[in-house]
This record gives sequence, structure tokens and C-alpha cells, in this order.
Amino acid sequence: PDWVPQVRNDVMMLEREYIFKNYKLAWAFANKVSELAEAEFHHPSILLEWGKVTVTWWTHSIGGLHKNDFICAAKTDRLV
Amino acid sequence: PDWVPQVRNDVMMLEREYIFKNYKLAWAFANKVSELAEAEFHHPSILLEWGKVTVTWWTHSIGGLHKNDFICAAKTDRLV
Repeated sequence: PDWVPQVRNDVMMLEREYIFKNYKLAWAFANKVSELAEAEFHHPSILLEWGKVTVTWWTHSIGGLHKNDFICAAKTDRLV
Repeated sequence: PDWVPQVRNDVMMLEREYIFKNYKLAWAFANKVSELAEAEFHHPSILLEWGKVTVTWWTHSIGGLHKNDFICAAKTDRLV
């Protein structure tokens, strides 16, 4: 599954699920996404579950998607 | 706010939001919850957002809440 547009509370977001074989791998990926977020000064929501991480990008200040969200989504893919 | 019972997909869960002053503090707390999860062999969902972590405990195998979920919730509170 690729990035999927989602609308929540009238806000357009970009969301993707990443599947892993165990918790440790999912956890490590979630931490890489947090490192990216801090480096970019732009923070997605990161949902960590057993074997799965769901990353959601959107731009709070404009209440929707900015070009930067698509760039960050592409950078997230490179962390796998 | 304390732990709140939630029903999702017919499954009863225990959920709590923890608020932090910035991303780093929220991130550090999320990692402590993951350490607890690995130590307990029991894994909640952990939603990390800017300044906020939402932790949700339930027992997958019984599709609901077990005494252990309440114990893990109490242990989560001690990580703040």
C-alpha cells in the first residue's frame, strides 16, 4: 500500500502504513521517522503498533497539504 | 484527564492522553512506553504527535480488557 489521502476533521492528510515482522523493527522505524521530523521541523503523527507503523503528514498551519508534506512522505519511504 | 474506556470495532480498550511541552519530551515518553511493552510482552498502541502521546491498552487475544491491561496502564502512568 502506498500513501493514501485521508480527510479528518476537514483536513486533508497523507497517510501510509508500514508493516514489520516484529515490534522492535516497527519501533526502530518509528524512531527514524521522529528523527526526520525533528530534522525537518515538521512533525507527522506516528502510530506505533505491534508490527505496524502508520505515518500521517499534513501541515497544521494551513489545515491541509503543502508541497512539503509530499516531500516528507517521500523522505519517510527512504527510511524503511 | 485519566484513563478513558473506549470501544473500537467492538473491542473495549483503555486510553489515555499525555501532554508534553515539546516533541522531544513526547518522543522520550513514547520510547519509555515501548520499553515497558517489550518488558511486559504486551504492546499497546502508541500515537506520537507534537507534544502529545496517546496510549491505548487492550488484550488482542481476548478482544477486550484483561486485568493485565489495568496493571500496564498504572505502570504507564509511572513513566511520566
